[in-house]
Amino acid sequence: MVITSLENNKIKELVKLQKKKNRDKTNTFIAEGLHLVNEAIKENIVIELFALEGENIEYNFAVTYVSAEVMKKITSLDSIPTVVALCKKNNSKQIIGDKILLLDEIQDPGNLGTIIRSAVAFNISTIILTNNSVDLYNPKVLRSTQGMFTHINIINMNAYSAIQQLKNKNFTIYGTNVNNGIDVRQLSNKYKNKFCLIMGNEGNGVKSNIQELCDKNLYIKMNSNVESLNVGVACSILLYELDR
Amino acid sequence: MVITSLENNKIKELVKLQKKKNRDKTNTFIAEGLHLVNEAIKENIVIELFALEGENIEYNFAVTYVSAEVMKKITSLDSIPTVVALCKKNNSKQIIGDKILLLDEIQDPGNLGTIIRSAVAFNISTIILTNNSVDLYNPKVLRSTQGMFTHINIINMNAYSAIQQLKNKNFTIYGTNVNNGIDVRQLSNKYKNKFCLIMGNEGNGVKSNIQELCDKNLYIKMNSNVESLNVGVACSILLYELDR
Repeated sequence: MVITSLENNKIKELVKLQKKKNRDKTNTFIAEGLHLVNEAIKENIVIELFALEGENIEYNFAVTYVSAEVMKKITSLDSIPTVVALCKKNNSKQIIGDKILLLDEIQDPGNLGTIIRSAVAFNISTIILTNNSVDLYNPKVLRSTQGMFTHINIINMNAYSAIQQLKNKNFTIYGTNVNNGIDVRQLSNKYKNKFCLIMGNEGNGVKSNIQELCDKNLYIKMNSNVESLNVGVACSILLYELDR
Repeated sequence: MVITSLENNKIKELVKLQKKKNRDKTNTFIAEGLHLVNEAIKENIVIELFALEGENIEYNFAVTYVSAEVMKKITSLDSIPTVVALCKKNNSKQIIGDKILLLDEIQDPGNLGTIIRSAVAFNISTIILTNNSVDLYNPKVLRSTQGMFTHINIINMNAYSAIQQLKNKNFTIYGTNVNNGIDVRQLSNKYKNKFCLIMGNEGNGVKSNIQELCDKNLYIKMNSNVESLNVGVACSILLYELDR
């Protein structure tokens, strides 16, 4: 059977998942394209698969075929994917491991996706997204992670309660600031075992009331003509050094 | 005088500059928003300023005021800027300095802008953009550079003639490849003085026929779950290490 009607109830429910509030309400999201779908299958989070009619998809899943017009309506991609998957969200609230990255109100989907990819590359165990951050399950974020969002524990938490919890467990809390900061190249290895790195948002950096909670500030040495790096780049270089 | 008509000839010429072919034909481009305009003024490349009516702009330039409707038509930004500048393009074809970055067919405007920012931060002297790269004067690229495009020599050149020219002058040519590569952390400082780093495009990396021209390959050590980093991040980390 091929679904060809945009009025089909299942399709209407899928289309609704383009909005964050509906993803939150149903605890589901859409993984788009072969690469993301494969990662989702590996992680065992797929509820249902939808493939373009005429495509020969071989999975251990019931595949529902849809017309190109229907797929176009479901997807947020410019080019129509051959397959999308309805998936369960990760609802963990648990901070796991000793290398934590806290992202405070990151706004740009591409930046978040890029940072997730780098966090996996440099062995971060948990990413904490604070309230008002761009949604992890935003299609652009998922695409920019290149599927890496399934390889790391990513949770939503209030910044203050997360930091308090980590402080109680003797994590070193790193902010980013040139004033009173340490060149990350000079940071001794003994401070790289149990930490939480806090990155602020694109426009404003780390907020002053969060800055006050940091034990140390790190900075990246650079040419004085440059005020700041792209937040994804800055975060990635710091993670690279903390993994050194 | 305030220009309020979308049919005004000057405005029509400005609007045309949203297209690359018209920027190429006229050798001009638009810098949008206060920050970019200020950088352009410092660099002495501004031909004419256009400000939103009612704004109080004080520059040593004749300012032409336009209505909000006209500004909206000129700009590619979602929010209407208070000022835009018609600017002269840099038409240098000269490779300057000893630290060169060659970007082969980078496609994403955000990636190019981010890389330019990092290149200035880590003291690159010339960026070579090969044919088929996204245009430097694309408004999204300029915005992502945060004005940094005026602080570095950026030229368009054919990849092969650029590499040949650099080889003749004894530059070390670095490609990026894990196979037969050197962990960039292990690279001796003596190899960081006179080099050209080549980054390939988002999808395909460095092309094999360019790869063959490289003296050494560099790689970034990372978790084996991750195939690759975002190209802007990878490039920035390599530049960070080459500036170490």
